Amino acid sequence: MRKMTIIGAGGWGTALANVLAKKGFSVTLWARRKEICDNLFKTRENVNYLPGVIIPANVHFTNDFEEAVKDSELVLMATPSMVMRDIIKKIKPFITNNTVVVSASKGFEQSTLLRMSEVIAEELGEDHPIAVLSGPNHAEEVGKDLPTATVVASKKKSTAEFVQDVFMSPKLRVYINPDIIGVEVGGALKNIIALGAGISDGLKFGDNTKSALLTRGLTEIARLGVAMGADTHTFAGLAGLGDLIATCTSQHSRNWRCGNQIGQGKKLKEILEGSNMVVEGVRTTEAVQELSKKYDIQMPISEELYKVLFEEKDAKTAVIDLMLRGKTHETEEVVRTERENW
Amino acid sequence: MRKMTIIGAGGWGTALANVLAKKGFSVTLWARRKEICDNLFKTRENVNYLPGVIIPANVHFTNDFEEAVKDSELVLMATPSMVMRDIIKKIKPFITNNTVVVSASKGFEQSTLLRMSEVIAEELGEDHPIAVLSGPNHAEEVGKDLPTATVVASKKKSTAEFVQDVFMSPKLRVYINPDIIGVEVGGALKNIIALGAGISDGLKFGDNTKSALLTRGLTEIARLGVAMGADTHTFAGLAGLGDLIATCTSQHSRNWRCGNQIGQGKKLKEILEGSNMVVEGVRTTEAVQELSKKYDIQMPISEELYKVLFEEKDAKTAVIDLMLRGKTHETEEVVRTERENW
Repeated sequence: MRKMTIIGAGGWGTALANVLAKKGFSVTLWARRKEICDNLFKTRENVNYLPGVIIPANVHFTNDFEEAVKDSELVLMATPSMVMRDIIKKIKPFITNNTVVVSASKGFEQSTLLRMSEVIAEELGEDHPIAVLSGPNHAEEVGKDLPTATVVASKKKSTAEFVQDVFMSPKLRVYINPDIIGVEVGGALKNIIALGAGISDGLKFGDNTKSALLTRGLTEIARLGVAMGADTHTFAGLAGLGDLIATCTSQHSRNWRCGNQIGQGKKLKEILEGSNMVVEGVRTTEAVQELSKKYDIQMPISEELYKVLFEEKDAKTAVIDLMLRGKTHETEEVVRTERENW
Repeated sequence: MRKMTIIGAGGWGTALANVLAKKGFSVTLWARRKEICDNLFKTRENVNYLPGVIIPANVHFTNDFEEAVKDSELVLMATPSMVMRDIIKKIKPFITNNTVVVSASKGFEQSTLLRMSEVIAEELGEDHPIAVLSGPNHAEEVGKDLPTATVVASKKKSTAEFVQDVFMSPKLRVYINPDIIGVEVGGALKNIIALGAGISDGLKFGDNTKSALLTRGLTEIARLGVAMGADTHTFAGLAGLGDLIATCTSQHSRNWRCGNQIGQGKKLKEILEGSNMVVEGVRTTEAVQELSKKYDIQMPISEELYKVLFEEKDAKTAVIDLMLRGKTHETEEVVRTERENW
């Protein structure tokens, strides 16, 4: 049997392990702690992160990196972005030059501002087959076999096609895209807008406000992405717009939930201390504060959110500032700052 | 006092009348039946369409066209699209060449496939000052003064700026856009996708499915819009993406609600008979079936929806056909059908 590996036994890692197991692969799911592996083996259910979904018998569990990745054709990383480099270093001795490594992690490395695929390439070499997987994908729904579409991006078409073939299933439709930068930027930055959408909902501002926030949010995501080398069309696709909608309008998203609590008056510190989940959007907000300076891009939503999260700005004031900023009696454009011939 | 007129006392007409009244204009709200006017006058509340919102004293009610529009600087049409031409004909004798006419109606004229601003221009002349107003705007939320953004489009910049000045308020932010075609197409076609989103939700398909549907929906809206002469950027803005999100993710939308009931197994005929509201998306689906042929544009979502609404196709089969259509083992692009250099 062909072996595939998932690193990280959160909800998304578990859901993807199940997808591959149902396709008949031998799947190894790596979890950080031995007791988690033992529990998964005993109960065949990830009670904390994907409750109610039975894990098929052909999923194996281990907390040993060698056992996890040895002889595997593909290693998918479903870990928090902050541990990406460390784990890649640890699996490196046990993989070959042909082992395809896929990042499903959404964020930037804090210290270097690198995208996840760049971190992987720094450790494994530019020529290593690397891909990213991203899209409007709530793990809970993939776990329940609800119809889902996702995107796999890679610099090499053959790598993207290989990953597409591995994951394509009756209920999980996989599209490929050459724009790895756009797919990663869309996946990471939508978490910032999800925090903002959560705040707006927590303040009871309604769907009009939230829709305006999402629209302008996608514009600023695309603006930074294009400056970083992405294709603007990617942001209109599943990994841009699609993921943004799924994350900002669903209570499944932990980023939305975190924002929602901030909107209701809680402090970020309290929220993070009270949760055992990683809220990627918080770290991404810090990274994007740096990236927007580096690329000289105006990102008003990310900036206001930074002030709310780290500078104690009142959340309600921030949302109203965003909605009402700029002059009121002069032309302000929806999309471009200037239109000719009008 | 400067006089402004709203034609149509549904939720949106009433909410906009209130916005203008709070700015100090003398507002006349026209309703079709006299007893509705009498009731509004007595209760100062639109119990059926905008309950819980007090209508200010400077809003006057009438069912007489002459009284409604005479000496008015601006007439906003918030009526179903099917009665647009008829009402424009009736108000024509009482307005001047300078009376700005604004369409807030979303749809096409069934028999001619004309946009609402085209219908108005046919009746009042190409040079008459005409604008459209559209965006992510639930009447219920504008009624409650929640922060909202909207778009006014006109061929003439001065007309757009006039309408912007009239409606701009602390909680209603008005942007202007020269692309009247794009703004109208976005506003009309999003109702089709809202029906589809409602069906998907009624079938309990989850947020992954719905986000994919919205993403691909916006692509086909933009495709038709551009063929009709719109600017593609408009669809990434408030009147495109913004309105799509607001309509498809909110239970305020009657199009979403209609779709939701279809997803739960009801027949279209039953639903329409049991409601006193107009479901614009149903007629728009018929119009777009014609438009897609006329402009030779592939619109798979609109087409499947047409089959569900008018040809008794099973809704679940339609959504699954949409999600899984096309070849599974070949490259299929997220956004474009072809990418070079990959």
